[in-house]
Amino acid sequence: MAPVKNARVIFNSVPEGYPVPGETTVYDATQTIDLDAVPLNGGFLLKTLIVSVDPFLRGRMRQPEQKSYSPGFTLGAPIDGFGIGVVLRSETVGVEAGKYIYGYNMAFQEYVVLPELSVMRRIIEKHPDLSWTTYVGAAGMPGMTAYMGWKEYSDAKPGEVAFITTGAGPVGSFVIQLAKKAGMKVIASAGSEEKVQFMKDIGVDVAFNYKTTDTRAVLEKEGPIDVYWDNVGGEVLEAAIEFANIHARFLECGQISGYNTGHQGPKNFNLIVGKSLHVHGILVTRLIPKYGAEFYATVPPQLASGEIKYTEEVTRGLEAVGDVILGVQKGTNKAKAVIVVADE
Amino acid sequence: MAPVKNARVIFNSVPEGYPVPGETTVYDATQTIDLDAVPLNGGFLLKTLIVSVDPFLRGRMRQPEQKSYSPGFTLGAPIDGFGIGVVLRSETVGVEAGKYIYGYNMAFQEYVVLPELSVMRRIIEKHPDLSWTTYVGAAGMPGMTAYMGWKEYSDAKPGEVAFITTGAGPVGSFVIQLAKKAGMKVIASAGSEEKVQFMKDIGVDVAFNYKTTDTRAVLEKEGPIDVYWDNVGGEVLEAAIEFANIHARFLECGQISGYNTGHQGPKNFNLIVGKSLHVHGILVTRLIPKYGAEFYATVPPQLASGEIKYTEEVTRGLEAVGDVILGVQKGTNKAKAVIVVADE
Repeated sequence: MAPVKNARVIFNSVPEGYPVPGETTVYDATQTIDLDAVPLNGGFLLKTLIVSVDPFLRGRMRQPEQKSYSPGFTLGAPIDGFGIGVVLRSETVGVEAGKYIYGYNMAFQEYVVLPELSVMRRIIEKHPDLSWTTYVGAAGMPGMTAYMGWKEYSDAKPGEVAFITTGAGPVGSFVIQLAKKAGMKVIASAGSEEKVQFMKDIGVDVAFNYKTTDTRAVLEKEGPIDVYWDNVGGEVLEAAIEFANIHARFLECGQISGYNTGHQGPKNFNLIVGKSLHVHGILVTRLIPKYGAEFYATVPPQLASGEIKYTEEVTRGLEAVGDVILGVQKGTNKAKAVIVVADE
Repeated sequence: MAPVKNARVIFNSVPEGYPVPGETTVYDATQTIDLDAVPLNGGFLLKTLIVSVDPFLRGRMRQPEQKSYSPGFTLGAPIDGFGIGVVLRSETVGVEAGKYIYGYNMAFQEYVVLPELSVMRRIIEKHPDLSWTTYVGAAGMPGMTAYMGWKEYSDAKPGEVAFITTGAGPVGSFVIQLAKKAGMKVIASAGSEEKVQFMKDIGVDVAFNYKTTDTRAVLEKEGPIDVYWDNVGGEVLEAAIEFANIHARFLECGQISGYNTGHQGPKNFNLIVGKSLHVHGILVTRLIPKYGAEFYATVPPQLASGEIKYTEEVTRGLEAVGDVILGVQKGTNKAKAVIVVADE
């Protein structure tokens, strides 16, 4: 068969603040691939169906010398993240053509050759009532982060108070529902009236728009809080510390307030001592070995039945990746951002 | 009997930076007390033998409107803290004259009437080979902080690396010995060569003077660290975060770097997420119900036998309190600061 187009999204320059579509990342359709002849070297060839645009991608857009928990993107090479593909050819035992692979370090590219499966790259099967897009969201990494982080660190007790940030996002909205199942009073924030309505729809007791309502005033009135799920850091984290109850648990999942404009530590960190607070950093990859099988057995049926609610904002085509990345960093996306790269 | 002098140490003004002896606190010998006639109202009268000068006292020297986990001192009234006294008269069941009381909220005053016992105010008996001074140090609140905080939160494993600050102080030196007992490699810092020598004497593997040696360089070479015992906060905390291992435990006991010059949050707090760090604020009063009986059964004999080593810097007379408080805040004290107010 003749070579076919193999479009991709290239990391083109390190952004200073927010990423700039077409400059930070560039859509490139100049490459081709020979699907029959490309060497697999023991690995397998995937046709990419879905890629996931998540907040953490910003942290990988950095100078190569800057260390972090996940490697930076390589200038001139495709960016990568979570995605789903279908196997076209394989030299890997157990990875037959026609299987679906979900995992990390999937290049944002129409076709990719991957070397092996791993804890973060596995064969998945689709629940008949779910879409593949959901498997990078509520049934994927964001859902796992919520489910596993909550289970491991929340120590939730009925009647306690939880405060959850980015409560309309794929992680926050899942956590909200776990907190309600645990019998807690739930306070949650998001950045638009539409998102506030969604949070109310899924059971939040005190939902507010942090752009128009003062977080400190809400927490002073509705707190003190026993569990804080942090996706934002910065001043909101400081407010949560200020209005935390004794022995409150802080589940540190993300710090998006600092991703584009620089991180600041909480100025009132010293209160952690006097309040006997417990702070846990959550990186889902380290929890998957413990909870992975349980998650896939439990969560997709709950999503399919409507027991756990979720939303998605699906965009078609790798061309849109730069704009969608920016939207996620600015919070102008409406729900979990998913890119459909190709149909099956 | 005629009234006798009842000297005390008054909180006279809120300090801006470091407390000023004679200005922040004032020794006042103008009061008298009639030991036979003073009404007890169901409580008991103590003759104060020992008062303890601890770092946390600085936090109570504040404007009344500023909230914190322990109440501020009252301007014009005696300061208070941990101390030991002998009962002269009592109307409290179970508190007979001649008993010794150790506890909190003991006024820095020669004689005090107290209303009742509590979790933080108890009858104690002295081990024959120990001095009462030790019962406000290694066998008192600082020792409890080390013993209980370590037991509850360190999750220490043989072969791991611990980093302990103020390693020559009453808390740090105790923690060092617990970490060595747990089979860890121990890095510890203090602010003088004499203190460094003491840390080596009690078994520290890597002891250094933070005033002449760069903490970051030590941790980069000897880390990464699995347990950090924080008595200082500030830049040292940032260095500990930078050179922490995945899943390291941070035991937050004190933040003396900020007590006099203002607190700063760790600028690299965001690394808590990526490294899956676990941060625990330690306030000993909340651990005493769980470990108090075990502590008094276990620790005094270990101190008496020399199994656990400790040092003290004993000063006589309430007149010295202002200077000793300043020394503890500046770190110019040589060991656990204790004031002997009176002999029995």
